[in-house]
Amino acid sequence: MVPRNVFYAQSGGVTAVINATACGVIETARKSKRLGKVYAAKNGIIGALREELIDTSKESRSTIAGLRFTPAGAFGSCRYKLANAEDNRREYQRLIEVFKAHDIGYFFYNGGGDSQDTANKVAEFSRDQDFPITCIGIPKTVDNDLPLTDCCPGFGSVAKYVAISTREAGLDVASMAESSTKVFVLEVMGRHAGWIAAAAGLAKDHRNDPPHIILFPEIAFNRAAFLKKIKETVQKVGHCVVVASEGAQYKDGTFVADAGAKDAFGHTQLGGVAPTLVDMVKVEHGYKCHWSVADYLQRAARHVASKVDVEQAYAVGRAAVEFALAGKNAVLPIIVRDKTSKRYKWHIEVAPLSKVANVEKPLPRSYISKDGYGITAKGRSYLAPLIEGEDHPPYHNGLPAYVTLKGTMVRKKLRPFKV
Amino acid sequence: MVPRNVFYAQSGGVTAVINATACGVIETARKSKRLGKVYAAKNGIIGALREELIDTSKESRSTIAGLRFTPAGAFGSCRYKLANAEDNRREYQRLIEVFKAHDIGYFFYNGGGDSQDTANKVAEFSRDQDFPITCIGIPKTVDNDLPLTDCCPGFGSVAKYVAISTREAGLDVASMAESSTKVFVLEVMGRHAGWIAAAAGLAKDHRNDPPHIILFPEIAFNRAAFLKKIKETVQKVGHCVVVASEGAQYKDGTFVADAGAKDAFGHTQLGGVAPTLVDMVKVEHGYKCHWSVADYLQRAARHVASKVDVEQAYAVGRAAVEFALAGKNAVLPIIVRDKTSKRYKWHIEVAPLSKVANVEKPLPRSYISKDGYGITAKGRSYLAPLIEGEDHPPYHNGLPAYVTLKGTMVRKKLRPFKV
Repeated sequence: MVPRNVFYAQSGGVTAVINATACGVIETARKSKRLGKVYAAKNGIIGALREELIDTSKESRSTIAGLRFTPAGAFGSCRYKLANAEDNRREYQRLIEVFKAHDIGYFFYNGGGDSQDTANKVAEFSRDQDFPITCIGIPKTVDNDLPLTDCCPGFGSVAKYVAISTREAGLDVASMAESSTKVFVLEVMGRHAGWIAAAAGLAKDHRNDPPHIILFPEIAFNRAAFLKKIKETVQKVGHCVVVASEGAQYKDGTFVADAGAKDAFGHTQLGGVAPTLVDMVKVEHGYKCHWSVADYLQRAARHVASKVDVEQAYAVGRAAVEFALAGKNAVLPIIVRDKTSKRYKWHIEVAPLSKVANVEKPLPRSYISKDGYGITAKGRSYLAPLIEGEDHPPYHNGLPAYVTLKGTMVRKKLRPFKV
Repeated sequence: MVPRNVFYAQSGGVTAVINATACGVIETARKSKRLGKVYAAKNGIIGALREELIDTSKESRSTIAGLRFTPAGAFGSCRYKLANAEDNRREYQRLIEVFKAHDIGYFFYNGGGDSQDTANKVAEFSRDQDFPITCIGIPKTVDNDLPLTDCCPGFGSVAKYVAISTREAGLDVASMAESSTKVFVLEVMGRHAGWIAAAAGLAKDHRNDPPHIILFPEIAFNRAAFLKKIKETVQKVGHCVVVASEGAQYKDGTFVADAGAKDAFGHTQLGGVAPTLVDMVKVEHGYKCHWSVADYLQRAARHVASKVDVEQAYAVGRAAVEFALAGKNAVLPIIVRDKTSKRYKWHIEVAPLSKVANVEKPLPRSYISKDGYGITAKGRSYLAPLIEGEDHPPYHNGLPAYVTLKGTMVRKKLRPFKV
């Protein structure tokens, strides 16, 4: 049997370790004689539709190995969700055409809940079309909101970045508080769930350590209570470090960030939750404040990735290929935590895509402290192992020596397609 | 001769490596039989005036060694400038009283230009008072704006952080630009000079690498030209990464940040230069944008410090003590770059405090590219060695194991003093 080619695509917001997953897929696939070349979509599923395929067989072994320590999406990702096949035969049909034209028998889709849904639909559609494609989802998301899997590759590294940044900025504020800045607000990602904000709690070893206040999307923001807590903390500790999820919101669902200043015409909207909170504190208490918005820095920070996260990211890539070779279809590898071991141990299991697609895993209330401003011991014991270990990238001239692909494109065979 | 005690104080904004300087001072002083104990001011010169002295002899050898890899000001710093002795005899007199009461013969003042000025004045005043104190300044500032010294301890690490963050966020934006974010703005420190913003230029190895635009305080901001350059870059590269100094300003000296939105009452002022720029780009071009404000994260980021910077920070601390032991007074150690060597080499020399006090070193125009949006080869060759080498801190439970002092206070002997 002539080996069929493999198709790999990255989807949605990228992470510090999604390329480690790509590395796991490609290195594992290269070892198998039953698989052909690995083609990667340029810019995610958009590239698949446009027949823009990168031939990874043209990349050297060391470049592929370097993906393990290179952040962001080396092949490009996209925010593009395929609609249901019934409403959208055109795009599914096109995918099958592209797969046929390039003799693709395996589709690995590396993304969040939406992508797992898409992978599942492609599996069904291809079966209906009598050109069955083995479709394997691969989990990825800094948001850590996929069900079944204990955690999501990408999350551990952003968690580590946020915990370290909180600790470091906290030391800075503590140094200066006597005569200068008393309140510092760090804004972190998490529009819908507080997983990332919760990770800041790992910086706290002792009662008065930062963060003193965490704002979760799950806990309705109460301006008066927040300002009271700020004042109490400054009076007790001398300063106050706040870590705010970008999704922090009032009881009625209004984002705190959206309640910030607008210009006279009402159309300007600057700032996020951090400057909005700082503004409240300044007006109410007159404290000198500083604020930071981590934004992409947090999810791209491969220089300080979690070793556990890198290993898991690689492992799900490898497992995806192994599942395909074992004849599995419409599944994804998930990370399972060994509940019987005292030391953190994990392994990979298989789960059906249908159970993951479009289901969000919320941050459990039991991980959030009673007052809503911190994490519990239970939350800590879930989070702590995920930031364990360092996996420093190699450096050159003082900077991480991230790899760049040649990105040789596969010759197109089909007519153009408008996305 | 009974050895006299040593007094050490940190001043102004802290850095990732100012404690490495403290480590150099204390470890070197501990080795000399001609010096007594090292007392450190709690919260800088304010602590000296209040007679709040931390007895570093109570700290273990490993805690002091740990200062080398612990960011921010372990003893506390402050923003407090002593006025001239003529206008302010009270504070100078008090300092001498505190020094007398605790048998202090050596004053090491670790700070920027203001602090060097203060150290110089204390030297003069103490001489006039017939209680001569050996006063040695020690350079420190992320702003890199001290004269005479080739660079300032603290700058190399913030430079490394900014260059790495620019590279990492740049990879993220490049991954997503086809269907999502096209413009990313990173705001960095530097109210008066563009040294820190310039360091972002080190991330650029190839023509189309980020940063595509750097905004310096030294180059008048031109809205139209900026927006044109954004559009050109997006059209050519597919995306655009901007690194903006917080001090970016219009020709008339108005900060770009201050031209942002205010609320209907005019008293709210959110955001800095990054959200202001993003707002311009959105309104003009409609591109999806993201922005980040690094703020304290950048100067506290010991986890990614420059090895050269750590070594220099330690070396100036050690040299300060050696100068004192050699009978020098009213001087500071400076870092001198060996101009004859091809490889970067540096050594410490001595300079008079009077020549450093209150003089700012601007970013040379020759380091900024002709169009004002990048750095030149000359700028790069100055900056590049300063971010060389990694000096990873030890980690515990996935987080840097920064040290905390016992902070045993010296018993007060004087009446209280109101600062």
